[in-house]
Amino acid sequence: MKIQNDLFLRAAQGEKIERPPVWLMRQAGRILPQYRALRAKLSGFKELVETPHLAAEVTIQPVDELDVDAAIIFSDILVIPEVMGLEYQMVEKKGPWFPNTIQNIDDVKKLRSGAEAAADLHYVYEALKITKEELHQRIPLIGFSGAPWTLLSYMIEGSGSKTFSKAKKFLYTQPEAAHLLLDKLADTIIVYLKNKINAGADLVQIFDSWAGILSPEQYKEFSLPYIKKICAAISEAPITIFAKGAWFVLKDLQEIEANVIGLDWNTRPEFARELLGNKQVVQGNLDPCLLYASHKEIKEKTLEMIEKFQGHHIVNLGHGVYPDTPLDGVKCFVNTVKEFEY
Amino acid sequence: MKIQNDLFLRAAQGEKIERPPVWLMRQAGRILPQYRALRAKLSGFKELVETPHLAAEVTIQPVDELDVDAAIIFSDILVIPEVMGLEYQMVEKKGPWFPNTIQNIDDVKKLRSGAEAAADLHYVYEALKITKEELHQRIPLIGFSGAPWTLLSYMIEGSGSKTFSKAKKFLYTQPEAAHLLLDKLADTIIVYLKNKINAGADLVQIFDSWAGILSPEQYKEFSLPYIKKICAAISEAPITIFAKGAWFVLKDLQEIEANVIGLDWNTRPEFARELLGNKQVVQGNLDPCLLYASHKEIKEKTLEMIEKFQGHHIVNLGHGVYPDTPLDGVKCFVNTVKEFEY
Repeated sequence: MKIQNDLFLRAAQGEKIERPPVWLMRQAGRILPQYRALRAKLSGFKELVETPHLAAEVTIQPVDELDVDAAIIFSDILVIPEVMGLEYQMVEKKGPWFPNTIQNIDDVKKLRSGAEAAADLHYVYEALKITKEELHQRIPLIGFSGAPWTLLSYMIEGSGSKTFSKAKKFLYTQPEAAHLLLDKLADTIIVYLKNKINAGADLVQIFDSWAGILSPEQYKEFSLPYIKKICAAISEAPITIFAKGAWFVLKDLQEIEANVIGLDWNTRPEFARELLGNKQVVQGNLDPCLLYASHKEIKEKTLEMIEKFQGHHIVNLGHGVYPDTPLDGVKCFVNTVKEFEY
Repeated sequence: MKIQNDLFLRAAQGEKIERPPVWLMRQAGRILPQYRALRAKLSGFKELVETPHLAAEVTIQPVDELDVDAAIIFSDILVIPEVMGLEYQMVEKKGPWFPNTIQNIDDVKKLRSGAEAAADLHYVYEALKITKEELHQRIPLIGFSGAPWTLLSYMIEGSGSKTFSKAKKFLYTQPEAAHLLLDKLADTIIVYLKNKINAGADLVQIFDSWAGILSPEQYKEFSLPYIKKICAAISEAPITIFAKGAWFVLKDLQEIEANVIGLDWNTRPEFARELLGNKQVVQGNLDPCLLYASHKEIKEKTLEMIEKFQGHHIVNLGHGVYPDTPLDGVKCFVNTVKEFEY
């Protein structure tokens, strides 16, 4: 059976479409009362990630509530470090925390990687299968992974950070260990994404959430080559790269075999188009805080952005939607896009 | 008596100089053992800020230890919100915290501003006078302030934040109150900087530390006009603007009557030159984490950066030096610049 609303996939593949598709990063989450109700009954965030039928349930919630053009599987980027051998906890209101971190090349050598590690993420694949079934081909399903550099940064730092200076120090002082770790991460991510596609993902997105804290030179040495490696290895489905804050390598992202480039809200449409050309589709990029504004302003700014991108565009925010965003602001945003026609 | 080493001031005024001057943001701080020793004897950070002879002492420490080309007065950007009526605490290992925050326009109206508020910062002016005396005209002294938007963001948010979504929400939902607050901040900062110059500052730097979290449109509405207002009002000394992360308005910073534009480490020298031209001097912009690297690498990358900027340049990092940076890495950086000749 064909996907009924395949606008998102057609857009991602560069087809000319009647209006831009729309979805939101973190749409399956705290903005929805039904998510918060389910979450309140559970022991924690990880229980939700690791229980396939619950992950499927919250993945579908925003599809029903917001009528978006794509679903994204509810999961977490840190499941990859975990199956490689670094367990983590999700501390309420604080974020992720790793009791053990990578100190040197011996620690890196001990990590599992590739198919062996990726196999342990059976609960993610199971969640995708259930979601795919329960979606009844209404819209496409997105799978995702963190990018190698972003995952490395947590594995060194041990938690979130304002500067990620420990992780960056590691790149400067132990480059050999860093490259080995990035390569093991890339190998694991490749199998992981292929498995996700096998389990039902119609497109995969790679989140390089901490791209913006690297210098252009370091980004080109420690992040870009591994994203390239992943993209080159995956031909089974279209790929989106979202390198947050990496405006300084936007031109280099052109070389990557990715279909879609995600943009944050700092990046003016004209600037992105100038550097990327029209080869790739762009995704983004309204300021997530705009959804706190009046409906009039949300509508105006959303239409203004669509006009500026001039097609070849998937509408999204420039970051994951913030948890306290009013649901009617989100709906106003989604509906504005759905009522638009090129 | 003339300043003996006035390289920094000559560079800031666009003169052709024999080598670029060098100093570091946060050079008066935790990288120095003598700072840590003094700090350990005190009740807290604010005692140091509020005690003129101690602030002067730590201001001069890096001058003696590192032989940099400029001193920057030890102080804090949040003294301005405080004299306007919002007290804050500096919580060890956590950062600033405001027991009360701005909720609406009535709160803004209650704040003091301008000369009346700035007068209460006599301890800062006193610290500048003592420092100026004790420097014996060896090198110039920098005074500084936070930019209106950055100060507003703390006054709304109440503390540091990953997203500053409360502050940004305030701009979207209460723009009138935001503009009134920004204007009161600008008026206070103008008097504050003039007083600082009277007390001995040879140049003043404005830190817009949270510039990078605004969209280009919001930056142009809520930050740029107030920085412009401040710059236009100050003719007594040269001005540096450091709008961290604001690459997307770099071209607009050209219009500001500022002598020097600070750059973060994301910004390639070629990109900055292309947008700024040669009208303004640039300051920056090595990755602060480079100082964790080997001396060979520090030396190479420092020289490479100097070559790329091709003059009209004050050497600095692209951010304040991180507290755990090895002192000999900092010295290697400073000495590399001092041994260079155009």
